[in-house]
Amino acid sequence: MAGSTYGKILTMTTWGESHGAAVGVVVDGCPAGIELSAADIQKYLDRRKPGQSRFATKRAESDTVEILSGVFEGKTEGSPISLLIRNRDQHSGDYSEIASYYRPGHADYTFDEKYGFRDYRGGGRSSGRETIGRVAAGAIAAKILQELGVDVFAYARSIGPVEIDDRKFDLSERDRNGACMPDAEAAKQAECYLDDLLSQTDSSGGVVECVMRGLPTGIGDPVFEKFSANLAKAVCSIGAVKGFEIGDGFAAAKMRGSENNDAFRMAEMPDGGKRPVKATNHAGGTLGGMTDGSDVIFRAAFKATPSIAKPQKTVSKNGEEIEISIRGRHDPVIVPRAVVVVEMMAAFAAADMLLAGMTARMDRIRDFYGK
Amino acid sequence: MAGSTYGKILTMTTWGESHGAAVGVVVDGCPAGIELSAADIQKYLDRRKPGQSRFATKRAESDTVEILSGVFEGKTEGSPISLLIRNRDQHSGDYSEIASYYRPGHADYTFDEKYGFRDYRGGGRSSGRETIGRVAAGAIAAKILQELGVDVFAYARSIGPVEIDDRKFDLSERDRNGACMPDAEAAKQAECYLDDLLSQTDSSGGVVECVMRGLPTGIGDPVFEKFSANLAKAVCSIGAVKGFEIGDGFAAAKMRGSENNDAFRMAEMPDGGKRPVKATNHAGGTLGGMTDGSDVIFRAAFKATPSIAKPQKTVSKNGEEIEISIRGRHDPVIVPRAVVVVEMMAAFAAADMLLAGMTARMDRIRDFYGK
Amino acid sequence: MAGSTYGKILTMTTWGESHGAAVGVVVDGCPAGIELSAADIQKYLDRRKPGQSRFATKRAESDTVEILSGVFEGKTEGSPISLLIRNRDQHSGDYSEIASYYRPGHADYTFDEKYGFRDYRGGGRSSGRETIGRVAAGAIAAKILQELGVDVFAYARSIGPVEIDDRKFDLSERDRNGACMPDAEAAKQAECYLDDLLSQTDSSGGVVECVMRGLPTGIGDPVFEKFSANLAKAVCSIGAVKGFEIGDGFAAAKMRGSENNDAFRMAEMPDGGKRPVKATNHAGGTLGGMTDGSDVIFRAAFKATPSIAKPQKTVSKNGEEIEISIRGRHDPVIVPRAVVVVEMMAAFAAADMLLAGMTARMDRIRDFYGK
Amino acid sequence: MAGSTYGKILTMTTWGESHGAAVGVVVDGCPAGIELSAADIQKYLDRRKPGQSRFATKRAESDTVEILSGVFEGKTEGSPISLLIRNRDQHSGDYSEIASYYRPGHADYTFDEKYGFRDYRGGGRSSGRETIGRVAAGAIAAKILQELGVDVFAYARSIGPVEIDDRKFDLSERDRNGACMPDAEAAKQAECYLDDLLSQTDSSGGVVECVMRGLPTGIGDPVFEKFSANLAKAVCSIGAVKGFEIGDGFAAAKMRGSENNDAFRMAEMPDGGKRPVKATNHAGGTLGGMTDGSDVIFRAAFKATPSIAKPQKTVSKNGEEIEISIRGRHDPVIVPRAVVVVEMMAAFAAADMLLAGMTARMDRIRDFYGK
Repeated sequence: MAGSTYGKILTMTTWGESHGAAVGVVVDGCPAGIELSAADIQKYLDRRKPGQSRFATKRAESDTVEILSGVFEGKTEGSPISLLIRNRDQHSGDYSEIASYYRPGHADYTFDEKYGFRDYRGGGRSSGRETIGRVAAGAIAAKILQELGVDVFAYARSIGPVEIDDRKFDLSERDRNGACMPDAEAAKQAECYLDDLLSQTDSSGGVVECVMRGLPTGIGDPVFEKFSANLAKAVCSIGAVKGFEIGDGFAAAKMRGSENNDAFRMAEMPDGGKRPVKATNHAGGTLGGMTDGSDVIFRAAFKATPSIAKPQKTVSKNGEEIEISIRGRHDPVIVPRAVVVVEMMAAFAAADMLLAGMTARMDRIRDFYGK
Repeated sequence: MAGSTYGKILTMTTWGESHGAAVGVVVDGCPAGIELSAADIQKYLDRRKPGQSRFATKRAESDTVEILSGVFEGKTEGSPISLLIRNRDQHSGDYSEIASYYRPGHADYTFDEKYGFRDYRGGGRSSGRETIGRVAAGAIAAKILQELGVDVFAYARSIGPVEIDDRKFDLSERDRNGACMPDAEAAKQAECYLDDLLSQTDSSGGVVECVMRGLPTGIGDPVFEKFSANLAKAVCSIGAVKGFEIGDGFAAAKMRGSENNDAFRMAEMPDGGKRPVKATNHAGGTLGGMTDGSDVIFRAAFKATPSIAKPQKTVSKNGEEIEISIRGRHDPVIVPRAVVVVEMMAAFAAADMLLAGMTARMDRIRDFYGK
Repeated sequence: MAGSTYGKILTMTTWGESHGAAVGVVVDGCPAGIELSAADIQKYLDRRKPGQSRFATKRAESDTVEILSGVFEGKTEGSPISLLIRNRDQHSGDYSEIASYYRPGHADYTFDEKYGFRDYRGGGRSSGRETIGRVAAGAIAAKILQELGVDVFAYARSIGPVEIDDRKFDLSERDRNGACMPDAEAAKQAECYLDDLLSQTDSSGGVVECVMRGLPTGIGDPVFEKFSANLAKAVCSIGAVKGFEIGDGFAAAKMRGSENNDAFRMAEMPDGGKRPVKATNHAGGTLGGMTDGSDVIFRAAFKATPSIAKPQKTVSKNGEEIEISIRGRHDPVIVPRAVVVVEMMAAFAAADMLLAGMTARMDRIRDFYGK
Repeated sequence: MAGSTYGKILTMTTWGESHGAAVGVVVDGCPAGIELSAADIQKYLDRRKPGQSRFATKRAESDTVEILSGVFEGKTEGSPISLLIRNRDQHSGDYSEIASYYRPGHADYTFDEKYGFRDYRGGGRSSGRETIGRVAAGAIAAKILQELGVDVFAYARSIGPVEIDDRKFDLSERDRNGACMPDAEAAKQAECYLDDLLSQTDSSGGVVECVMRGLPTGIGDPVFEKFSANLAKAVCSIGAVKGFEIGDGFAAAKMRGSENNDAFRMAEMPDGGKRPVKATNHAGGTLGGMTDGSDVIFRAAFKATPSIAKPQKTVSKNGEEIEISIRGRHDPVIVPRAVVVVEMMAAFAAADMLLAGMTARMDRIRDFYGK
């Protein structure tokens, strides 16, 4: 099945293997008339690229994006935008051994079962490099959101047992530490924890949190296309994600109705008018699957990087039980680099639903067409 | 946007409002030649219908399904199967007051914002009655799974603070208590907790867990159409769900790679052959987005029923801050009746992906077409 | 595969077999706030229902539509609209013989090959009764078009060798004759031709022409989703259609560029302004796949009804070569009743593309969201 | 809307403008395990590339394809196949004048209306160069068809008034003349006709015919996803196509049922068994929307190339009525180069429907999964 396209109105189709010639993405359905340059995309790719801290793979990739179509005289044309990022530092040799056995926690076995064979060079299509296309596409979605006054940002909420303290939240801190945490102290602890794991040739998981601010109310649909359901799919489609929650999430399952319900009150708007707002935000920004005017806030749980040098038991392709130690250039934790991937998937899902939200009311459609 | 259809190869399109004439679903893409009767569907609807315990709404509905198309001489024809369930006990009068204000935790406000008005009778399209169509459609998916040797079952894992004890797990117990728990003792505690909440005119949330057994390996796709991502969307599209996790889920975010990785070993199969199996199942049955031969196991977090008689603050449609107490026939906890909804959404998503999985390999396609 | 849904933003899912309990359709994605009653739909169903002339099947069906969902206080709610039409006069007995052989020109053989068996009662899913759902759904699309000032009308252009004379075109005449022709004289000739065929137990084909007036410019997309390509699919999905052409169609293949190109000129608009219009309309209302402000005009070729009493050679299911004469209640020509089906499929396709057309430009999206 | 993707199970997403850096396509859903090299694709691109006869544009493009992903050790991996073709000879300067007015028969006006501006360099996205992606994608579909014993071929049936004579049909002749006709004599006449038009600075249309041989029976679905309906959309989505017909097409509209029906007879198969076959093929290979075992045969009508040097009336962007003469490198007839585009779109549509056809019957699905 064609499983490499995400979105309904705004779509991205990612392509490329870890050790092929290039990776890329085609974004279709982008409205015409948005100013777009390679730099608009590059800044997000730079947040995800390897080699920025001692906790990231040493693979040397500049991940420079080339815009091949869809932009004319600096503006989107309404036609598909094709983005290409060449792979430079493939080192396929590193991976030859992997061809002969199944790495625990990896997709080696399931690829063989599904397709009859696999591209064993660095995970092929299951590699984290596939997310380059997602980030590049998300950068275009972020431009659309920006035009509509919507802001999206994500950060590491926790790494292993270390969690940020909301009272010390400072987003500007996020890009200054190797943990991608908006809390300098927690970041320092997380880095210690990771250094310790590195010395043990082990790895860590963590939680990414994402906030979307400024979305119009009523985005998302009441049944299958709930705002939250689409976010859940977008986020759980990122490799290594094992859980998704919105608002109070799993904690809400333990709360009473009287605790979890968000009361409405009237709030004054910047223009002097008044409108209903929620006094609290246990819901995380949606009611009945549609955005409610509060911040959308959600979390994604990432498992630990499965590639570890620590010895592990597994089986070979010809059925022997063996013990392996994985070499190569791997991140001891994927969370810091995954932050921008979560942010960009959320941006893309939101932009898609914003565009889809234009056909809900006949009166507005009549206005749109001047009838 | 058309948001009432779920699935790609096998689709369901649900329709109907809480207090309209009927609710229903059209299932399209069902293979021809499956024996199907109304009874096959009714048994699942009966698990979800109201009035089965003191924790469920008193609304009197038999929820009897009528098959209107797609079945000929007792077998599916390969054409769309239209299922109709008449609403009987609407009592629209109960809801007239709701029209004038926004209930906390409900979709009243977001419906008004999105569509300009709303069907205020019992939540309209956001009502739990919409899930009747999902359960009926899921029953057909369950028949497909059965033909392929796949078994799906769900149960309440926790209600408020009360959780089942895995050592006392007994699935047959599930249908004997009002908590839908596979552990008689935990069920008793949950019922006490709920009785207490009822006396306080409050409500509770909880967690539903679901297991899928017997799926072939390699189902689901490596990128956006991961088995887990599709489950996440299917489950998070159910009203009141605030979180989804697969395998160890959020707990995995705190684990090390060496703890979380599932080692492979060789296992003897019933036919005497051997194949790789995972020694543990932290992953919850998928690797790289594809089923890995282990049980798929996931959880959904449900918030507490927002309709409570306890006084709450909110605002009226014309902007007054008011206090309300919601009357009507509401479940103090949705979890016991939601169990079959989760089970059926999972069955549907799995059946859809099983059908989608047939085109992955050219050698098998050639075999299929006898070339 | 799920093949019973048409449309992207506005969708219809038809269901029902010729001799089942009912036929129907679910329309999803309809904007909220459109006044809609059963009468709005019934008037189109009445144009297609049997028994209105001696050239139509004698099957006695009132084809009365019931709206089961999606309408609240007389207005569309933005939720799926479920429409039900009960079958009354099935006479399944008439068809028992058909079970044993393959009727020429029918789908009997291909159904058996595809699904392993078939619903032999009156064509099952391939029956013309499936188009009831299309017409009912199209009626809703026609309401959307009406709100946007778009008018769609179709008529029989030819029946067998008899063609209308454009100089005598009078649309009001269309509904006054059994040929559904907007030319009284041609209609009389066509009726004579059909009477003659009836006496010979034979049948006729014909051509339906359809005009769409008032569409905004720029509807449809430049590549796969051309306005014309979507019309082609919508129209060729109607049973018995063997050809589609837009504007000069096949005649254009014989014309020179200098003959076929439509020159532009400036035209005064009702509001006093001027805009470019085409001086001629060889193109039939689209340029590069997008509407160009002229009338869209297209034609569909229908083959003769395959059910004829005249003896025909065929084979039985167990492989004998036999001669058959088909009894039962069949139209000697399908064209007059197919006119409204073509009109409604065109209306539906156009409404779907109009809604899809709202996301093409960022400046208009910003206006829409008030940013 | 995202309109640059075609297909359901097997998809192609084309991208690129006439005068951008490159054009390309991503093919997703291709089964794993098919041998695929650049040469397999190049041979089709070479049939469409410019400069092969005096009737084709002089633009000098080698149209060399680069496979960027999806192929590992010479075989398709089951992941998306990204194909890139660099533009070399853009000559953007030639087109600067076009920016100021609307060419008759072109999409200039409709692009401006839809998107607010346009890429005026050679038609941008509406250029014939967009079909490079279609041909490259079709080449992969052709490989799938080949594995299943299906053969597809197209040719020019007519150019202007010159039509081939079926008695002189010789497919090998097709690639030996500038008219792409499988009849040497007709080709000679067509070339004379075109030379004459060239001297008059005019252009011609024509008809492409396509045959699909060896398709299994039962491909395509009975309602909206008819084999014929999907072909119609695929073919009418090619620029300049104004009509589509299958089998006897528009001629069938004039035939009687007794003439148009194809009788069945029993035919001996190569393996000695017998099965029903149609004695004639007026239907063109489908019954009820599904393939019937006969050759599928259809035709597409192409209008004349709108770019002609002959003076034409039109209007400028600022509303003046002017006369223009189009310079640049244009084909006086598009038909010969469009033959392979029709062939490849048909191949792609057929391969997509073949894959979709695997889920129709439960017994075969059980066999597939070994249950």
